[in-house]
Amino acid sequence: MSNQQMQLGDEVLARLAEVIESRLPANGGDPAKSYVAKLSAKGLDAVLKKVGEEAVEVVMAAKDGARDKVIYEVADLWFHSMVALAQFGLRPADVLAELARREGLSGLEEFAQRKG
Amino acid sequence: MSNQQMQLGDEVLARLAEVIESRLPANGGDPAKSYVAKLSAKGLDAVLKKVGEEAVEVVMAAKDGARDKVIYEVADLWFHSMVALAQFGLRPADVLAELARREGLSGLEEFAQRKG
Amino acid sequence: MSNQQMQLGDEVLARLAEVIESRLPANGGDPAKSYVAKLSAKGLDAVLKKVGEEAVEVVMAAKDGARDKVIYEVADLWFHSMVALAQFGLRPADVLAELARREGLSGLEEFAQRKG
Amino acid sequence: MSNQQMQLGDEVLARLAEVIESRLPANGGDPAKSYVAKLSAKGLDAVLKKVGEEAVEVVMAAKDGARDKVIYEVADLWFHSMVALAQFGLRPADVLAELARREGLSGLEEFAQRKG
Repeated sequence: MSNQQMQLGDEVLARLAEVIESRLPANGGDPAKSYVAKLSAKGLDAVLKKVGEEAVEVVMAAKDGARDKVIYEVADLWFHSMVALAQFGLRPADVLAELARREGLSGLEEFAQRKG
Repeated sequence: MSNQQMQLGDEVLARLAEVIESRLPANGGDPAKSYVAKLSAKGLDAVLKKVGEEAVEVVMAAKDGARDKVIYEVADLWFHSMVALAQFGLRPADVLAELARREGLSGLEEFAQRKG
Repeated sequence: MSNQQMQLGDEVLARLAEVIESRLPANGGDPAKSYVAKLSAKGLDAVLKKVGEEAVEVVMAAKDGARDKVIYEVADLWFHSMVALAQFGLRPADVLAELARREGLSGLEEFAQRKG
Repeated sequence: MSNQQMQLGDEVLARLAEVIESRLPANGGDPAKSYVAKLSAKGLDAVLKKVGEEAVEVVMAAKDGARDKVIYEVADLWFHSMVALAQFGLRPADVLAELARREGLSGLEEFAQRKG
């Protein structure tokens, strides 16, 4: 992966999180127009149910040995994880900081410390 | 978030994926020393079981309204998702490309197209 | 629980299994009229997705400490487990026999042996 | 299935529930000797985590098309559901009554009404 690809790819989670946040009902998201707004309006349990459901879909795609489906379902799982995070005012950066912290990735600990 | 934080944070998934790959038994990972090697050596079902388990932990942390636990458990869920991806030779970049593609994030579609 | 209640209650799983079987598409169940027929017609993955989904609902009801919801969601979970069993020509009696066998319940081992 | 088998099989859930209840720490169950006591002593989350885990095992066994494993994993799922019920002072009979009620099984509605 080139540096340029890395930088573009790396912005995905942060930008996606911004989109999700903007669509929360509390931020003016319209359940009639936005999936995230509609799901969030149903309440936390509806969001969490999707997290569980998508995890099962990942399991089934992997059991099928279907690489494209695995990618698709992990994307669904991460997306709904981010919708869950947004219910708590949390962002992917919080999760990335935790991952960096625990893995002790060199050069990334500093990031985690500043985040903490 | 400053640009510097963004860049450091954005590398987490890619670097973590490299660490995970290097610890796969097929790549010389030692089950006696590495959690990823040990888990992968147990087979795909063991990895997938963890994905399901961590999804339930996310649900429980969210029901507790415990923000720190939510971060911790989503980190666990994403980590084990990445271990699952690695069983198929897949990387987080594949998932990020799919997320960018479906969301049609401006400026990121190009990334997805080049990936595809 | 009186003996009469026991006997009535104990027939529930066996009779419910008969209803489920009769509604499988292979047995003439009509997806337009029956939930079981409709779900089964979607394929095994759709049935299994429901098993995972209902498990998460049990977890959330229990976290809420809502006894009535726990009963309701465990009923959903067992019901969909039985729809999954039916896809393999299996019945609750097979599960009960396994439970009796492993628990070594006195007087019930004999049942398990005759089943096996 | 003969009537005799039915009666023996039908007692399994009720008798298993009694065993589970007797092993709850609150009822003197010893975590050093009993799996149910040990699991319950870890708290509700540990029990619920097992419910989620066993649901995933059912999914994987079904995806493998392994009938014996499906039986085994559904038994595990139902067993841990019953341990979860026991944390709330609930029994399989409560679930069976709900199943009878909603399905409107003839001759079983009466049971459900008396239970309710």
